[in-house]
Amino acid sequence: MSKGNTKITLAEKDMPRQWYNIQADLSAPLRPPLHPVTGQPVKPDDLASIFPMNLVEQEMSTERWIDIPEEVLDKLLLWRPTPLHRARYLEKHLQTPAKIYYKNEGVSPAGSHKPNTAVAQAYYNKEFGIKRITTETGAGQWGSAIGLSCRLFGLECKVYMVRVSYDQKPYRRLMMQAWGAQCVPSPSPDTNFGRKMLEKYPDGSGSLGIAISEAVEDCLSSEETRYSLGSVLNHVLLHQTVIGLEAQKQMASIGEYPDIIAGCVGGGSNFAGLSFPFIRDKINGRDIEIYAVEPTACPTLTRGPYVYDFGDTASTTPLLPMFSLGHGFIPAPIHAGGLRYHGMAPLVSQVVIDGLVKPRSYNQLQAYEAGVTWARTEGYIPAPETNHAIALAIEEAEKAREEGKEKNILISWSGHGLLDLPGYDAFLQGKLTDYAMSDEEIALSLKSIEDLPKP
Amino acid sequence: MSKGNTKITLAEKDMPRQWYNIQADLSAPLRPPLHPVTGQPVKPDDLASIFPMNLVEQEMSTERWIDIPEEVLDKLLLWRPTPLHRARYLEKHLQTPAKIYYKNEGVSPAGSHKPNTAVAQAYYNKEFGIKRITTETGAGQWGSAIGLSCRLFGLECKVYMVRVSYDQKPYRRLMMQAWGAQCVPSPSPDTNFGRKMLEKYPDGSGSLGIAISEAVEDCLSSEETRYSLGSVLNHVLLHQTVIGLEAQKQMASIGEYPDIIAGCVGGGSNFAGLSFPFIRDKINGRDIEIYAVEPTACPTLTRGPYVYDFGDTASTTPLLPMFSLGHGFIPAPIHAGGLRYHGMAPLVSQVVIDGLVKPRSYNQLQAYEAGVTWARTEGYIPAPETNHAIALAIEEAEKAREEGKEKNILISWSGHGLLDLPGYDAFLQGKLTDYAMSDEEIALSLKSIEDLPKP
Repeated sequence: MSKGNTKITLAEKDMPRQWYNIQADLSAPLRPPLHPVTGQPVKPDDLASIFPMNLVEQEMSTERWIDIPEEVLDKLLLWRPTPLHRARYLEKHLQTPAKIYYKNEGVSPAGSHKPNTAVAQAYYNKEFGIKRITTETGAGQWGSAIGLSCRLFGLECKVYMVRVSYDQKPYRRLMMQAWGAQCVPSPSPDTNFGRKMLEKYPDGSGSLGIAISEAVEDCLSSEETRYSLGSVLNHVLLHQTVIGLEAQKQMASIGEYPDIIAGCVGGGSNFAGLSFPFIRDKINGRDIEIYAVEPTACPTLTRGPYVYDFGDTASTTPLLPMFSLGHGFIPAPIHAGGLRYHGMAPLVSQVVIDGLVKPRSYNQLQAYEAGVTWARTEGYIPAPETNHAIALAIEEAEKAREEGKEKNILISWSGHGLLDLPGYDAFLQGKLTDYAMSDEEIALSLKSIEDLPKP
Repeated sequence: MSKGNTKITLAEKDMPRQWYNIQADLSAPLRPPLHPVTGQPVKPDDLASIFPMNLVEQEMSTERWIDIPEEVLDKLLLWRPTPLHRARYLEKHLQTPAKIYYKNEGVSPAGSHKPNTAVAQAYYNKEFGIKRITTETGAGQWGSAIGLSCRLFGLECKVYMVRVSYDQKPYRRLMMQAWGAQCVPSPSPDTNFGRKMLEKYPDGSGSLGIAISEAVEDCLSSEETRYSLGSVLNHVLLHQTVIGLEAQKQMASIGEYPDIIAGCVGGGSNFAGLSFPFIRDKINGRDIEIYAVEPTACPTLTRGPYVYDFGDTASTTPLLPMFSLGHGFIPAPIHAGGLRYHGMAPLVSQVVIDGLVKPRSYNQLQAYEAGVTWARTEGYIPAPETNHAIALAIEEAEKAREEGKEKNILISWSGHGLLDLPGYDAFLQGKLTDYAMSDEEIALSLKSIEDLPKP
């Protein structure tokens, strides 16, 4: 008790009132997305049938600070500001002089950082007169976040959930239904593409690519419906910057500043949310090491090239400038489902290109070992995705011990693992494999992007 | 945003340093527990083989304030102080002038209030030189809390989990295992009583009574092992009073005081945790309505007599002075597993006898309807047990609307329902029944206590 500062809260009145747009501080403008047919830079109108125009404008904005609408703030206050904890028991266990801080995004109603952008997207859709949102989800983190947010703003919501997850991981589907969202297994009989897939593969387990195609087709079938995406895009990352902006205030309130920052990356949104405000400090001269941590089973940043590639497996989205393993890449079935994405947010890709962020990777066994160590010292059971950031924190804390250096390590604790416990069970029973990719597998996967335009 | 005070935090330095012992403020001393064989009041030594003596002394203490040991405070700080939220969106939905506040115990690593006492019990056992704790668990809320707490204090832990829950509700078992506790289905081949039961009923689904007997037998087989209980006993309720002591400070920090307080009751510990510090105020003259809310499927306080009865189904514990439906009572299989207990904590029974607390009951359908309304307005999905307190809050808020009165309603939000989603699914699909008990069922159940001593 005498130690203090195990949990650093932030008063509601100190909640950030603006999002931070890193596009204002990049050394050069972000390369534009390209139209998938013409190969020309995408224009706002090209996106108007998919996204409401207010979000399209936000996607392209280079204003540094963007006001968070009052109605969005009000909803965020249901769980924000989130606590910043110090992981004292982990530090003690590691016998490290390093201080390990974590920003706990697991306290949201959906249990992850995803609602930060979901409530904002639901709001902008509603403002634009949209009545209904369609989306896809894999394991269900995103689907549950948008299901919750649509309910809070009175929108209808339809989630196409990859069938294998729909059947094997019922809990997040049940969350969506508790909030009143419609969740169907994809491929579904509700769309032309879904029916075609069902005819071709009656027992197919589905894929994120198929689910995206269904959600987009559904969206295009109605004037009052738009589509929503939970990561990768600029406006999604923008909405997540409340994480880092709060963390900056919380660190300042105890007179500390991080030496090392880390977050796991799948599409890149929770990592960007924590790190972008600190990257601004780094651009302005601060000395910080910032790490984007990915699984060796999907080593987009550590082993993929920077290219133009489709955002989806079905090759229907605009081409995005990003690190990619090729849109045909199907990652091994690691439990960290949120990190199984072939590409990377263009903004995260850019800060890696610019040398502001270094990528690192851990395999599934290393990640779970870190997660179990965390649960048994700090109590909270982390999401399998979050375990990758924890693995880095532990490695850096051990390094600090060896070097005898007092370092401040700050990680994004992107979500809890209460609905992912079977993965821990498999790990503890010795049933998991590491799934690190071979050079041959990567070379093969990259063939799918050989003929695409180069950045 | 301008509204403020949606979530009222409390700084670590303001965390209560003492537990509140309501035994100091009762109009008469609590009736003693009676030895199950002799019928004489239980002496501390009678309990020494089951509980460590420091907890036995705490059980019998009548000191008003009991210091929380620093090491317990340090562990509680992993998640405490918990936030007090105002349920603005529910208020708006109900169009009520009432303000609804809820104390969010769902933020603990195990997702409920149970770790408040689990960490204290693990600490006192460790202090007394105990190396290993045994316990039983039904759905797993208690087993996971004690599993976590044993790990935090370096104790071994073995949990006997009722087989039907072990098989049907794997997630809480997986939590225990993630924290390193041993969890076996009961009846198990690990005890004499378990083997006997397995021989007699090879396909038996187990019961809490059997699991208690196994945990106690295991405990008695080793000098370094003690048994731990998650509710009912005085020291358990004492440890939970941090909930109400924090809530008092949080309400005071915004210049408010509750007119109505409610919590759900099974054994009584979360209700006592929130209400006892306020009952002290009531004894000292404050005008508060305080409600203990139970399911109509297990209407201990609303329809049971105040008697001496066994705490367990197997008739092995001391006789406790309490409201009871008879130790032979097997409640209907409602999803609120934590409320399926035939008795009630002696201290909660006493404050009902003294007229300080009024019991109320809701059936399962009313409780789930309240829970869905909550999830769809406030976001967080409540535990099925918590839904009973929410049902009362909604009814009182509607009454306040009709009467045009501005009332402050404060409830114990005892846990989240993320691992209880199948119950919501069944409710939304119209598959649940209300399970209100008939007079005949109650009369039949009470036969099991006809011949026991009267208080």
